[in-house]
Amino acid sequence: MKTTTLAIIGGDRRYFAAANQLCTAGVEVSVFGFDDTTPFNLNIHTCKTPEEALTASQYVLLPLPCSNDGKTLNAPLYSGSIPLSVLAEHLTASKTVLGGKPDNTFKTLLREKNIPFIDYLSREEFAVLNAVPTAEGAIEIALHEMPITLSGAKCLVIGFGRIAKVLCHRLASMGAFVTASARKPADLAWIQAYGYTGIHTKDLKEHLSRFQLIVNTVPHLILNEELLNKINQNTLIIDLASKPGGVDFEYAKTLNLNVNWALALPGKVAPQSAGSVICKTVLNIISESEVKV
Amino acid sequence: MKTTTLAIIGGDRRYFAAANQLCTAGVEVSVFGFDDTTPFNLNIHTCKTPEEALTASQYVLLPLPCSNDGKTLNAPLYSGSIPLSVLAEHLTASKTVLGGKPDNTFKTLLREKNIPFIDYLSREEFAVLNAVPTAEGAIEIALHEMPITLSGAKCLVIGFGRIAKVLCHRLASMGAFVTASARKPADLAWIQAYGYTGIHTKDLKEHLSRFQLIVNTVPHLILNEELLNKINQNTLIIDLASKPGGVDFEYAKTLNLNVNWALALPGKVAPQSAGSVICKTVLNIISESEVKV
Amino acid sequence: MKTTTLAIIGGDRRYFAAANQLCTAGVEVSVFGFDDTTPFNLNIHTCKTPEEALTASQYVLLPLPCSNDGKTLNAPLYSGSIPLSVLAEHLTASKTVLGGKPDNTFKTLLREKNIPFIDYLSREEFAVLNAVPTAEGAIEIALHEMPITLSGAKCLVIGFGRIAKVLCHRLASMGAFVTASARKPADLAWIQAYGYTGIHTKDLKEHLSRFQLIVNTVPHLILNEELLNKINQNTLIIDLASKPGGVDFEYAKTLNLNVNWALALPGKVAPQSAGSVICKTVLNIISESEVKV
Amino acid sequence: MKTTTLAIIGGDRRYFAAANQLCTAGVEVSVFGFDDTTPFNLNIHTCKTPEEALTASQYVLLPLPCSNDGKTLNAPLYSGSIPLSVLAEHLTASKTVLGGKPDNTFKTLLREKNIPFIDYLSREEFAVLNAVPTAEGAIEIALHEMPITLSGAKCLVIGFGRIAKVLCHRLASMGAFVTASARKPADLAWIQAYGYTGIHTKDLKEHLSRFQLIVNTVPHLILNEELLNKINQNTLIIDLASKPGGVDFEYAKTLNLNVNWALALPGKVAPQSAGSVICKTVLNIISESEVKV
Repeated sequence: MKTTTLAIIGGDRRYFAAANQLCTAGVEVSVFGFDDTTPFNLNIHTCKTPEEALTASQYVLLPLPCSNDGKTLNAPLYSGSIPLSVLAEHLTASKTVLGGKPDNTFKTLLREKNIPFIDYLSREEFAVLNAVPTAEGAIEIALHEMPITLSGAKCLVIGFGRIAKVLCHRLASMGAFVTASARKPADLAWIQAYGYTGIHTKDLKEHLSRFQLIVNTVPHLILNEELLNKINQNTLIIDLASKPGGVDFEYAKTLNLNVNWALALPGKVAPQSAGSVICKTVLNIISESEVKV
Repeated sequence: MKTTTLAIIGGDRRYFAAANQLCTAGVEVSVFGFDDTTPFNLNIHTCKTPEEALTASQYVLLPLPCSNDGKTLNAPLYSGSIPLSVLAEHLTASKTVLGGKPDNTFKTLLREKNIPFIDYLSREEFAVLNAVPTAEGAIEIALHEMPITLSGAKCLVIGFGRIAKVLCHRLASMGAFVTASARKPADLAWIQAYGYTGIHTKDLKEHLSRFQLIVNTVPHLILNEELLNKINQNTLIIDLASKPGGVDFEYAKTLNLNVNWALALPGKVAPQSAGSVICKTVLNIISESEVKV
Repeated sequence: MKTTTLAIIGGDRRYFAAANQLCTAGVEVSVFGFDDTTPFNLNIHTCKTPEEALTASQYVLLPLPCSNDGKTLNAPLYSGSIPLSVLAEHLTASKTVLGGKPDNTFKTLLREKNIPFIDYLSREEFAVLNAVPTAEGAIEIALHEMPITLSGAKCLVIGFGRIAKVLCHRLASMGAFVTASARKPADLAWIQAYGYTGIHTKDLKEHLSRFQLIVNTVPHLILNEELLNKINQNTLIIDLASKPGGVDFEYAKTLNLNVNWALALPGKVAPQSAGSVICKTVLNIISESEVKV
Repeated sequence: MKTTTLAIIGGDRRYFAAANQLCTAGVEVSVFGFDDTTPFNLNIHTCKTPEEALTASQYVLLPLPCSNDGKTLNAPLYSGSIPLSVLAEHLTASKTVLGGKPDNTFKTLLREKNIPFIDYLSREEFAVLNAVPTAEGAIEIALHEMPITLSGAKCLVIGFGRIAKVLCHRLASMGAFVTASARKPADLAWIQAYGYTGIHTKDLKEHLSRFQLIVNTVPHLILNEELLNKINQNTLIIDLASKPGGVDFEYAKTLNLNVNWALALPGKVAPQSAGSVICKTVLNIISESEVKV
């Protein structure tokens, strides 16, 4: 059986762990875009140019997100700059690119050259596994910010998707009284099955005043003026929704509410575990494409 | 606002609780098909004939399953017999029938008369909420049959659907070491996120010998001859899969394995809670159809 | 180092597991008082007479309780009879007897011959470890007897000793709402720290009517006429207190209350795990006496 | 019934919550030693001098610890200085002083004047309830410092006293693999009953290398040179032992180990909850002394 080869170009601390674990799993890993290469295993090829890494590899793992400016690769641990166009030069239709949240320019570039692209951010298992460090990050914020213990605290989690499921589980096991809100009967059934108190999202308004911690996980504007007016001043609000967020931050500020908008927690809270999540997802993608072949 | 009217015809002990709770929720309930009507609230109309109950009602709640023989209604608490054809006579297109697992004859009968039918067994929240009494029933069997405590026991749950999710949660919290098997990466991710050990279903064979309790939740033949051969003689096997079941029962018998095929647990283990589940699902169905109108 | 030798005379199924595990731990085990010796490991000496087993052994493990009638050994799996006096004949001051709840006659007999006796029932770790099968037994009864699920059930545990601590932990993790009653501020503090609702035992009366399950763990008459009068007829009462029990059973019967007096659960519910508990306790006793020597 | 009167002199933010809750519970509270008195309820008497507060009160609640220098009261929120001698002048044998960790000089002073003194730090319920914020504080540190999630982390808790019991419970419910070490068979039995892995403290040396988090709760030097040599460099060590601590900090530094000595967590992590603990303990003390009278 042929060894799988993979290049990692750019990315934050998570990609150290991802690289090392992929290497341990038997993948031949080449890396570029890290000034300090000491965290990498000895068996990993630390390359001098992107070309060197790309040429040697069948798979190319790009960071999450691929780019912050639409022009250069997202490589926060590299003092130089890696234009996406330079990267694209060395990619061919025989390589598979794995990346997160590519912008349209980059997608078009890849499509023009018939380069297969897989957005690992959209993989279900990636989202599920990242729910764990996200939930832990929210709990760290709550422990740090609140003058009371989570044990005995009245907590509301808005939404009952992946992150909310894990977060409710952890909050409850820390001794908090957990209420979750949802709209779908099936979600409300799950909330009950797991032993939390369920409320319908449309009834949020009547309940908001009694919580000491409110965590939003829904990626729309949920906590608008009307709802924010109901929230107690001592309540901590954590918004886990990605941009544009689920809270009317401007209005919350005028009410002097304590809102913590916590984004991209996995990479901040537990880069090593978040790196494992990337590694696992990549191994799943590789094993599925090999089955197809 | 008009009061909702509903007839309950036939069914087991769950329908006492369902009737009483629907009544408490403001539904006008008529019942037929129960020799002993003392468990019903005083506000419930106990009728002399199916016709009486049906005529008065906009919704008709039939048991789960509707019929066991394809001819008469499933009414285990009634000494008489209620032919489905007689029932159909008194139904009209202006009534909505709620029932579970109707057979084809009955479905055809209803369709011919344009009578709206909703299978509440297929509702997601019904399945989720019933996962709780099912999981508790499985735990009762395990506690009763095993010579060891669940605390410290090595348990395998095959599949990671609704019942498995709740069962793993309860087993783990009783102190068991929980392993769950699944095929999809997303399911395996959930298994890890909740802290259980995950194994891919295709690798079951290599692991079966080390478990003291094995619970199957997958509705196909999973534990076939090859796999049964790997299971320890002291292991308890509980099959929660509906007919035809997930275990080769014949072969298991020749191996002298202890297999417990546990069907329809909610109604047996916790008829009152299972009745609440029916009540909730019916209320959801009613409220959704009223929104539509 | 000299091998430790130990005789097991009489006892129920737990002593099969205890014997086999002691044997696996390196103890040389001789047994007498079991008609069927097939459950014993091959390395265990199955003896023809008590004398044979006793002569060979430095330690003698007697059942729990030693005797039910004060005259013969408690040997439910033996068709013959083993008088305590015969046993005593073959005991000498150089042997150590381990037994549970010896009556005064037997204690006197041993003391007269200067035979060291250790009551393993009074060992703290024995009581703690047996709390697990006891709690599981109580949960099995609750699951079997109640028409509702434990998930969501309002449960009261009276007392907060060892069994109560484990039972509350398991009930809560099954999704029950757990209240525990105690008198000491420190116990009430533990109840709060573990996230249960605490009530002072003196206030029980005002709260009893709202519980669906009441488990007494206190070994005095707690549920007297006055308190029983407050309990709902649908409530299940489980009494885990050893004789004379914590419930006025006569009066409860006149009220038609459902009381389940559950004694000696570990041996019934999980004989193999309960046997492990005996084995562990015996090994601790042996290792401590060897340190002293 | 006469209203109970109580003076609070000095202390940190916990005493705001304690004062307000005592006031709500019906105690007449006077305070001195806080520059900013806005956090106090309107019903609390904010006094101009210690004399004013003391004269009015039957009970005197002093901070924890009473003094840091043996001469002046511990009043971190007061810009002035309150000599213990001045305080003692206004105390009489008819008042009861509640304080934490008084030094010998102050104890002698009180004894000479026959002033009853109760050290609330030594109350069992105080220690138990403070175990909760302490455990949460340790978890906050772990979440903040470790590059991996607690979910799946291998954690060791040294000792199995009050704090360890709560900490193990919380760590396990966050998804960590929890091992606890103890010496007493009964403690090891509890460790097993709660489902953690137990190791005997004397065997620590052989196991230390495999943990990613080690929390010491034993108030002696446990992690000495020999043991520290066994610990992995990536391991986070949290020492919860009060002075002089349980870790050879000097030697740990030479090994470049990451040691976090976390003292007095309740007041830092959750001052409001820690204030409730003080309030509860004070109410218990008052109610017990009233029973005696």
